[in-house]
Amino acid sequence: MSMFSIGIDLGGTNLRIAAFTSNWERRGAITTATRVQDGPGAVLNDMCAAVKKLVAECGGPGDLIGVGLGSPGPLELPAGRLLQPPNLPGFEDLELKTELENRLQVPVVVECDANAAALAECHAGAGQTSGYHSLCMLTLGTGVGSGIILNGRVWHGFAGMGGEAGHVPVYHDGLLCACGSRGCLEQYASATAIARAGKNIVQAKSENGLGMMTARSIAEAASAGEAESLNIYHGVGEALGIGLANLVSTLNLPLYVIGGGVVAAWSLFAPSMFAELERGSYIYRLTKPADPAVLEAGKTNVLPAELGPDSGLLGAAMLPFFQSLSS
Amino acid sequence: MSMFSIGIDLGGTNLRIAAFTSNWERRGAITTATRVQDGPGAVLNDMCAAVKKLVAECGGPGDLIGVGLGSPGPLELPAGRLLQPPNLPGFEDLELKTELENRLQVPVVVECDANAAALAECHAGAGQTSGYHSLCMLTLGTGVGSGIILNGRVWHGFAGMGGEAGHVPVYHDGLLCACGSRGCLEQYASATAIARAGKNIVQAKSENGLGMMTARSIAEAASAGEAESLNIYHGVGEALGIGLANLVSTLNLPLYVIGGGVVAAWSLFAPSMFAELERGSYIYRLTKPADPAVLEAGKTNVLPAELGPDSGLLGAAMLPFFQSLSS
Repeated sequence: MSMFSIGIDLGGTNLRIAAFTSNWERRGAITTATRVQDGPGAVLNDMCAAVKKLVAECGGPGDLIGVGLGSPGPLELPAGRLLQPPNLPGFEDLELKTELENRLQVPVVVECDANAAALAECHAGAGQTSGYHSLCMLTLGTGVGSGIILNGRVWHGFAGMGGEAGHVPVYHDGLLCACGSRGCLEQYASATAIARAGKNIVQAKSENGLGMMTARSIAEAASAGEAESLNIYHGVGEALGIGLANLVSTLNLPLYVIGGGVVAAWSLFAPSMFAELERGSYIYRLTKPADPAVLEAGKTNVLPAELGPDSGLLGAAMLPFFQSLSS
Repeated sequence: MSMFSIGIDLGGTNLRIAAFTSNWERRGAITTATRVQDGPGAVLNDMCAAVKKLVAECGGPGDLIGVGLGSPGPLELPAGRLLQPPNLPGFEDLELKTELENRLQVPVVVECDANAAALAECHAGAGQTSGYHSLCMLTLGTGVGSGIILNGRVWHGFAGMGGEAGHVPVYHDGLLCACGSRGCLEQYASATAIARAGKNIVQAKSENGLGMMTARSIAEAASAGEAESLNIYHGVGEALGIGLANLVSTLNLPLYVIGGGVVAAWSLFAPSMFAELERGSYIYRLTKPADPAVLEAGKTNVLPAELGPDSGLLGAAMLPFFQSLSS
């Protein structure tokens, strides 16, 4: 077959590996549990076995363009070294890039998972649809990840930590974040934050039958008109609007993409998000589209992600094609 | 003589024009009042007469590399069109670039004044001293201007409005800004904001003899130990720290430069600025220098500007050398 690239999506729960053509068509995929408890060596071996299997299935090493890996942060980039990943205990200071290259004998590009997802949205999602190749993507999941793409390439900054907009302070002296700061966007717009905000909602039957609320069950309650749940998503939108006002005023990008599991509740948080963004950024007011839900050329567009949960895996496979930008 | 470039610094009060060699040595300068009341035609003519005089003095049109103009915003860039400049009444929608090029018959690069100052700090100020060519500069003057330089070039964004960090919301629902939003950094860290905060300080003798406080007289009172004046500068530092935490987490640049007249009071606001930055950004905590006042390679450095009030003029002359980055 034609040339192909392999992406690895390293999650705290699942390890996913897939091959893609240069048109971003998937040619094979392997999913397995991430054996965190067995240590880095076991996980690295699982990655390499899957890569080798896919290479053999897809035509052999001569057709392999490269291997890209999206990993939870924080990472030192482009060196590809894990720092202190909260979801991968025992993986501190792991030299992901070097270890994989030594095992595979091919070049490996390591990237933060949120940056990989943003790269995929740029080249095969909302960026491709809109024709814009500069964007910032916020991924609303367990945390709030974020990636900045400038003219088709990931913006790294000087230490590979560019685009950590999930840790921008939206409310001064607000809620304490796991990062140690207060008022971070992540504490208001992540699935975790939504579930926490809903923990006091009295509800006989919830998603997991245990009386515990999740971001999804709160969205369902909100959609059914439950006032406190509606209020929680109103707050998600407000925090996102403040964070976006920051980004719009600082970066002046043509496109901001909201992804991650929480984006399924777009209709619940989008109204307060756009209201707050309009209130908070005169640049947005100067450049807002006639209808915020409809892409408009030459304006500041904020749109839901198009690719869904596979964007990180596809973005990882794109890494060998697009060299990152560092300062 | 050797090749030279001409910079124009268009201010609401003064119009300054100077020639510089490609080593950024000044070769001649003309300063005149900006005849705002006589309209755009008069000001354009003053600019062109000064440019022609300097060209003749410096060796003739064959040695002229180009003309750069730094202007108050907001501007549409790279088109070089003024939008609605609050300090230049009657200049709305003026096509600065086109009008100057028609009159001078040479290429003219127009840039926002804060971006021009940032470019000068990059290539001849704190950026050159540190060896870093990616930075964000905040200029604390009548307002808070800001410019982002990535790898030696001005970051424009898609409409030329990149780097408006003076209008990042630092306090949600804070003070009303002239831009129409609330809580903008400009409302806490500009000379205007400092003077307003000090207007209730009872003081028999002040800088202008009229009992009106200025940012400078408040700084003098603070330096003499006056408690309310000290508190005002503490607040300047806190707002700057929140704004910088935003920028550090979003951009991960190696260098942030604080300029403008207010920076003379660095020792009054720097302690609370660094304290708040450290509190507000885990990326800063991961990458802070051992001593925040001393440049350290591979760290996040926040330093006072080196060039003083001429940086906008020099930066304007640099514009023909460094093409801006757009999305």
